[in-house]
Amino acid sequence: MSKICFNVIIAGGKGTRFWPLSRAHRPKQTLKLLGRNSLIRETAERVYPLAGRKQTLVVTIADQLSLLRRELPGVPRSNFIAEPQGKNTAPCIGLAALEVMRRDPEAVMIVLPADHWVADVGAFRKTLKSAVQLAAGTDQLITIGIKPDYPETGYGYIMKNRAIGSKLDAAFVVKRFVEKPTLSAAQRLIRQHGLWNSGIFIWKASTLLTALRRYQPEIYQSLEKINKAAAAYSLTSSAPRLRKIIADVYRGMANLSIDYAVMEKAGAEGKVLTLEGQFGWSDVGSWAAVHRMMPKDRNGNASQSRWLGLDTNNCLIHAPNRLVVLLGVQSTVIVDTPDALLVADLERSQEVREVVETLNRERLNSYTT
Amino acid sequence: MSKICFNVIIAGGKGTRFWPLSRAHRPKQTLKLLGRNSLIRETAERVYPLAGRKQTLVVTIADQLSLLRRELPGVPRSNFIAEPQGKNTAPCIGLAALEVMRRDPEAVMIVLPADHWVADVGAFRKTLKSAVQLAAGTDQLITIGIKPDYPETGYGYIMKNRAIGSKLDAAFVVKRFVEKPTLSAAQRLIRQHGLWNSGIFIWKASTLLTALRRYQPEIYQSLEKINKAAAAYSLTSSAPRLRKIIADVYRGMANLSIDYAVMEKAGAEGKVLTLEGQFGWSDVGSWAAVHRMMPKDRNGNASQSRWLGLDTNNCLIHAPNRLVVLLGVQSTVIVDTPDALLVADLERSQEVREVVETLNRERLNSYTT
Repeated sequence: MSKICFNVIIAGGKGTRFWPLSRAHRPKQTLKLLGRNSLIRETAERVYPLAGRKQTLVVTIADQLSLLRRELPGVPRSNFIAEPQGKNTAPCIGLAALEVMRRDPEAVMIVLPADHWVADVGAFRKTLKSAVQLAAGTDQLITIGIKPDYPETGYGYIMKNRAIGSKLDAAFVVKRFVEKPTLSAAQRLIRQHGLWNSGIFIWKASTLLTALRRYQPEIYQSLEKINKAAAAYSLTSSAPRLRKIIADVYRGMANLSIDYAVMEKAGAEGKVLTLEGQFGWSDVGSWAAVHRMMPKDRNGNASQSRWLGLDTNNCLIHAPNRLVVLLGVQSTVIVDTPDALLVADLERSQEVREVVETLNRERLNSYTT
Repeated sequence: MSKICFNVIIAGGKGTRFWPLSRAHRPKQTLKLLGRNSLIRETAERVYPLAGRKQTLVVTIADQLSLLRRELPGVPRSNFIAEPQGKNTAPCIGLAALEVMRRDPEAVMIVLPADHWVADVGAFRKTLKSAVQLAAGTDQLITIGIKPDYPETGYGYIMKNRAIGSKLDAAFVVKRFVEKPTLSAAQRLIRQHGLWNSGIFIWKASTLLTALRRYQPEIYQSLEKINKAAAAYSLTSSAPRLRKIIADVYRGMANLSIDYAVMEKAGAEGKVLTLEGQFGWSDVGSWAAVHRMMPKDRNGNASQSRWLGLDTNNCLIHAPNRLVVLLGVQSTVIVDTPDALLVADLERSQEVREVVETLNRERLNSYTT
């Protein structure tokens, strides 16, 4: 890359949507849901060529620090930033921006959730390279919009305005962000050339901090406090004095997503650009999404396990240790683990999150941790 | 009882319909599907008061002999008759009749499949006592017909003719036997006062052997050969010379059910009587039947396991060793065992038999034995 840039992998998810495979101590990004490696490792290897391993930062919560270091042995230990607790993406990305600024005040950062799936890695990198070039020369915020394959209701949408730049490498000014729609709304958004909001962002660290100061002065002030306290350290230091200050600041930190805290507001002022990505993408948001991306037999069943089906269609079977037999079962996900078994309507696999909440509430949290 | 009678429990089933809980070496009759004891033990304890333990015979196949002896420690070892291989019910009941004749040529035998369920044991015994009284004084064959609760398509039906005897204790001459009907046929049979064919029979051993001689002379001759060879032994003896002769005879023995071999033909000649039973009965023929008889929660779910359901109705969950979570699942049976898991449409649980055939065909018989 001609410009200095950093990969920033945000990896603080708690892992409830993939229960019983995911647990509090085995979050989604560490699972091998698709492909041979964990999602975070696939994500990291996808972007190493963009900024290099040494300029790849990982932001996570303290609980997951050693787990993720083991998953990404190629990333220097001093590149892992630990939040004392999860406060959604705005504080997390702000913290990463501080660290990037300290390393290079001019640098561009590529913000990537740890748990996405991409089909065409070459096309993905090409789009991000264009975005980095664009970001280096502007004070606008850049987001990757994905050309939709179908009217997904689990994603937010980006509605774009006029194009800027050349036809081949076009960026668009964002008109507005739309939250997760109903099915009919999603169909309408697609007809209006809306894009899926990927949650992948590219901007100069300084640009993001300026936006936070403008739209979220409280978060910005909290970050300033941390930055001041860390003057003698790296933000990734484990020095107890620094950790304590960060923990104190985080307790009072607002819990806000970057979309709500910054993107929607900046978008309303015409300060967000979007680049169209066409590389086969998913945020791997549920078992249904995993089913959609896995290879399937002629009855629509997906599995890497030993199983037998009679009159069984559109199922996902994850059962590495036992034989599964399905008889007359339709659109169902079966996930088999040593202590717990899930059988769920595939179309309702988003609700697995509520299952975990129920288990925790009913003091069955030995099954969720 | 005023008359000498024997209980004859027939227990040669292979255990395919309750896979994966049942296996070749753990057949249905040894499972605790309903209640605290195995089905065969519940059956035996239900009839001990009728003929006594010492006059309770068990006919099984050689493979299951030691297993069933362990299940019924109260029955003398010399009361277990082992068939060298399963040849359906006609040879099995014929063999038992020979042994009963040897012990008492006048005795009545009560033939009971090992794997039935009865709700009202008192009423059940009362009906059988009446049947024994009746059988002792007639040369007709007696079968218990069950007043149907609903139009079951998994049972054969008995259509009755005129009543004989008193009104309270009525027996009926059987007009004809009807094989497993379609649903609309079952509804019509019920309107015509048809009864379920329970497979429980009461007759003098001599009466049954006379019927076999008349309707199935080949089976009768085979039994005669066995009887002659066993002159110096009990039929339950394990003497190698006797076992070899029985094995040789059995290889050529016709494979016929008692219904086809004798009952239908005798019925056509007006030689079968039926007593109406009203005691809550099932042949426990499938997981759906187990579900029907188990206590259920207000959503129709039956389980003795630890499980959690969201929007889940009419399910049967058997999972003694793991937590099961069901999300949006309807009318499904889930059976969890250490090496295999079944998830099946409850209405199609009859087809589990075919699953086992498929597993055996695909050389996955480590899961069926």
